[in-house]
Amino acid sequence: MRVYLAGPDVFMPDPLDRAAALKAVCRRHGLTGVSPLDALADEPSDWAALAEARRIALRNEAHIRSCVALIANLTPFRGPSADAGTVFEVGFMRALGRPVFGWSNDPRLFADRTQAFLNGFARCTEAGWRDGEDMLLEDFALRDNLMIDGAVLASGGALFVADPPAQGRWSDLSAFEACVAALATALGQRG
Amino acid sequence: MRVYLAGPDVFMPDPLDRAAALKAVCRRHGLTGVSPLDALADEPSDWAALAEARRIALRNEAHIRSCVALIANLTPFRGPSADAGTVFEVGFMRALGRPVFGWSNDPRLFADRTQAFLNGFARCTEAGWRDGEDMLLEDFALRDNLMIDGAVLASGGALFVADPPAQGRWSDLSAFEACVAALATALGQRG
Repeated sequence: MRVYLAGPDVFMPDPLDRAAALKAVCRRHGLTGVSPLDALADEPSDWAALAEARRIALRNEAHIRSCVALIANLTPFRGPSADAGTVFEVGFMRALGRPVFGWSNDPRLFADRTQAFLNGFARCTEAGWRDGEDMLLEDFALRDNLMIDGAVLASGGALFVADPPAQGRWSDLSAFEACVAALATALGQRG
Repeated sequence: MRVYLAGPDVFMPDPLDRAAALKAVCRRHGLTGVSPLDALADEPSDWAALAEARRIALRNEAHIRSCVALIANLTPFRGPSADAGTVFEVGFMRALGRPVFGWSNDPRLFADRTQAFLNGFARCTEAGWRDGEDMLLEDFALRDNLMIDGAVLASGGALFVADPPAQGRWSDLSAFEACVAALATALGQRG
């Protein structure tokens, strides 16, 4: 069964090696990992006229539609939340009604990460913590924005978190493997 | 016609006043703005047992499904990209195949915003700019991650950008109004 592997892993220095490593874990659990970097078997010929970024976006959407589930690397990326492209894809798959699983190598809760990101530039008000622009900090003891955690849980998925040392932030695959194992079990039980 | 108003506007100090202001603009253009803060007419009774964050997430998903289009406030939020909840909702609506429009009060391109966010901690390599963790900077002369720009364009939407002074970053509605006007025209032409 095909599973889409969303994440900022495509930005790593060796994105093809990384995709191969993620796919090898999937294979060990009886699943076929689909990378955003994979070619599309039946790419429409009229996409050739589009700019590269447009083609990549359409290709990823087609990959997601071709998969029975999605696994997202939700490790925070340049801010308190996960990578924007990854979050987009989580929302996309959630609308399709299929399982979304997530993993992260940052064990902190979203509110704590946001506080750390703001680096002291937050103040406590009666309505909750606010940043320097008076914008509220979401604080529901979740892993990321409530749409993400909510979608994962409502879809029948789960979130897995690891706490590797800093140098393992993008390489450690223990939470990913736990995620793949749980998805394989869930898909097996569904039949 | 109902249009979902995605954005970090819900985090502003006066979120209900803000929702009313956005809806007033929609009304002027013949559209019905739907805010994430709106009650759901037919909320399932079994949601009462869920935690508040879960209910909010399900309610927003239901609101999006009830709308013919989505307008997203893509003004960058705590990082180079738009608010994570907003990006999730853009992906969700894109999967439903309906028009997604976006607006932002930050005129910079995504790559330039990311450079500013990294504040000098980026280096130029043969494959492009990389951050301190060796992760690539996306650089396609777009407004945000390519999944977002790509979805807006593929859906028949458009992006509108304003450049208000700093104190108007969250209050200026000129780009929003341009967005609403363009959507109203697009929906009118579709009939």
